[in-house]
Amino acid sequence: MSLTTKEVQLKSRPDGIPAASDFEIVARKIPSPDDSQVLIQNIFMSVDPYMRGRMRDDFQLGAVMEGATVGKVIESRHPDFQVGDYVTHWKGWREHYLSDGKDLDKVDPDLAPLSAYLGVLGFPGLTAYGGLLTTGALQDGESVFVSAASGAVGSLVGQIAKIKGCTVVGSAGSDEKVTHLIEEFGFDHAFNYKTADIDAELTKALPRGIDVYFENVGGPQLEAALNHMRMYGRIPLCGMISMYNNGPTIAPGPKNLSAMIYKRVTMKGLVTPDYIDQQAQFREDVGQWIKDGKVKYKETIHQGIESAPQSFIELFSGGNEGKMLVQLAEQ
Amino acid sequence: MSLTTKEVQLKSRPDGIPAASDFEIVARKIPSPDDSQVLIQNIFMSVDPYMRGRMRDDFQLGAVMEGATVGKVIESRHPDFQVGDYVTHWKGWREHYLSDGKDLDKVDPDLAPLSAYLGVLGFPGLTAYGGLLTTGALQDGESVFVSAASGAVGSLVGQIAKIKGCTVVGSAGSDEKVTHLIEEFGFDHAFNYKTADIDAELTKALPRGIDVYFENVGGPQLEAALNHMRMYGRIPLCGMISMYNNGPTIAPGPKNLSAMIYKRVTMKGLVTPDYIDQQAQFREDVGQWIKDGKVKYKETIHQGIESAPQSFIELFSGGNEGKMLVQLAEQ
Repeated sequence: MSLTTKEVQLKSRPDGIPAASDFEIVARKIPSPDDSQVLIQNIFMSVDPYMRGRMRDDFQLGAVMEGATVGKVIESRHPDFQVGDYVTHWKGWREHYLSDGKDLDKVDPDLAPLSAYLGVLGFPGLTAYGGLLTTGALQDGESVFVSAASGAVGSLVGQIAKIKGCTVVGSAGSDEKVTHLIEEFGFDHAFNYKTADIDAELTKALPRGIDVYFENVGGPQLEAALNHMRMYGRIPLCGMISMYNNGPTIAPGPKNLSAMIYKRVTMKGLVTPDYIDQQAQFREDVGQWIKDGKVKYKETIHQGIESAPQSFIELFSGGNEGKMLVQLAEQ
Repeated sequence: MSLTTKEVQLKSRPDGIPAASDFEIVARKIPSPDDSQVLIQNIFMSVDPYMRGRMRDDFQLGAVMEGATVGKVIESRHPDFQVGDYVTHWKGWREHYLSDGKDLDKVDPDLAPLSAYLGVLGFPGLTAYGGLLTTGALQDGESVFVSAASGAVGSLVGQIAKIKGCTVVGSAGSDEKVTHLIEEFGFDHAFNYKTADIDAELTKALPRGIDVYFENVGGPQLEAALNHMRMYGRIPLCGMISMYNNGPTIAPGPKNLSAMIYKRVTMKGLVTPDYIDQQAQFREDVGQWIKDGKVKYKETIHQGIESAPQSFIELFSGGNEGKMLVQLAEQ
């Protein structure tokens, strides 16, 4: 017996901000599991900014866009997986996935909501945890600035820094998000980078300067932060969302990198798999903080695989608050 | 008895490249040493790019431009210093200096030529040594690119990297300097950044990419190097001479900083005093390498304190090869 399923393929490589026409939703048949195979019904799929980079030369044209997904086993001929098991894997964006079991990780839906395994307890969460504590070498009580602070990574960065006794400033792209940063996530100060004088905000909120700037965006916020870094400050480079889509008319970089010299600032690129050996400790810490009410998280959930391209495009105009997800099926 | 001596004062803060009119040569009387004082006849004074930064807000208008100097004791009422002793201190640019002895370091003119204590065995040498080995965390056999490679710092960076078995590429601003880098300093490859296609040169000379880019200049060379960095590459930021003089029309920075993310590149500012605890080891190592003929150095020496402003200005147009010095007196 076979099943008809839909998947999102990359149709053309975007020049600048991706358009709906760069993607194609394709229906195809998927067979029942063979010996040692498992069929997964994907429930939530993750929509992440880093995928923009992979569209440049990694994802193949006509192939499925791949990303993090959580789903349920609906047929199994694999001894380790039973119908009803929940798993995460990296083979979204598709409604179903036929696996040999090697690329699946079981998750417990009673410990946390399924969607959390793609966000605060998944790779975005690990990015925040490892990026801030390991690459950023955060010390208790320091001054932290995080851009894209209402996103899945940024909101956890700010909350971890608060747990460590830091003074935390965040930027976001709407007044509503700014209010949430302060009132819900407990940031000390936040501003709307589209309308505020970034330099003045940093001067006011962190008069002693910035020890760690957690960099998600690039552009004018990086340039402003460089002028405010303290001696021996650190800039973990997590993303530069403002620069991913620039294509041929790419914006200039910061003209004040030389400010790093005298202040011995360290800037360092980071990629989440570097922290994979911290995953157990990360899940224990963040899981406990969630339980204690010290860490909160938001999700923006769109429905149906057809909404995936537009959800992805909206990441670059700030259409999400917290983790951007597409729900493909009921739990 | 008093002595008439000349000194170079900062007259106005330059906007862009310094002009001769930003400096004033002033003659004044200097008294004979009082109890516990030492009078130094300065012999060589150092002219360094980093001083451009200090002209912005550190050096006071109407005060002496201060820099590294080596000189001879010509009068002494201090028990630790005898007439004829040679010393280094930081109180150039002036022909004589009256000291309480606390800021003087004796040097041995028989171990190395006096001028070397301002260059290859002085702060520029320590900058190269600590910047490459500590901040750059150089491993034997890696690929190294150094800009401003014929300068006092760059030429030692390249030679130390060669001693460590690395493949070394350097850039300089004239064909003559490029020839010297290869024929005299033993670089594997060198190019004239003013006329070459920087990207093509790096592709050809270091097809596996760059492990350490020792950054002295900023601008297009940094942008090109970023595209060639290898996984876990390091960029010690020693200077950005192309960006020091930019004033209000400052040039844009590199637009490809996001290349650092996936490759986990580290960029870190460095300042020579950070390596002061390595000074003994540095002098032992580099002294030995000079003795063994493994390290060579060049000097560009101008005569008389009146030549100091022009010598300094020429640093920014590449008028020097190796250490730029002004000679104030015979040894």
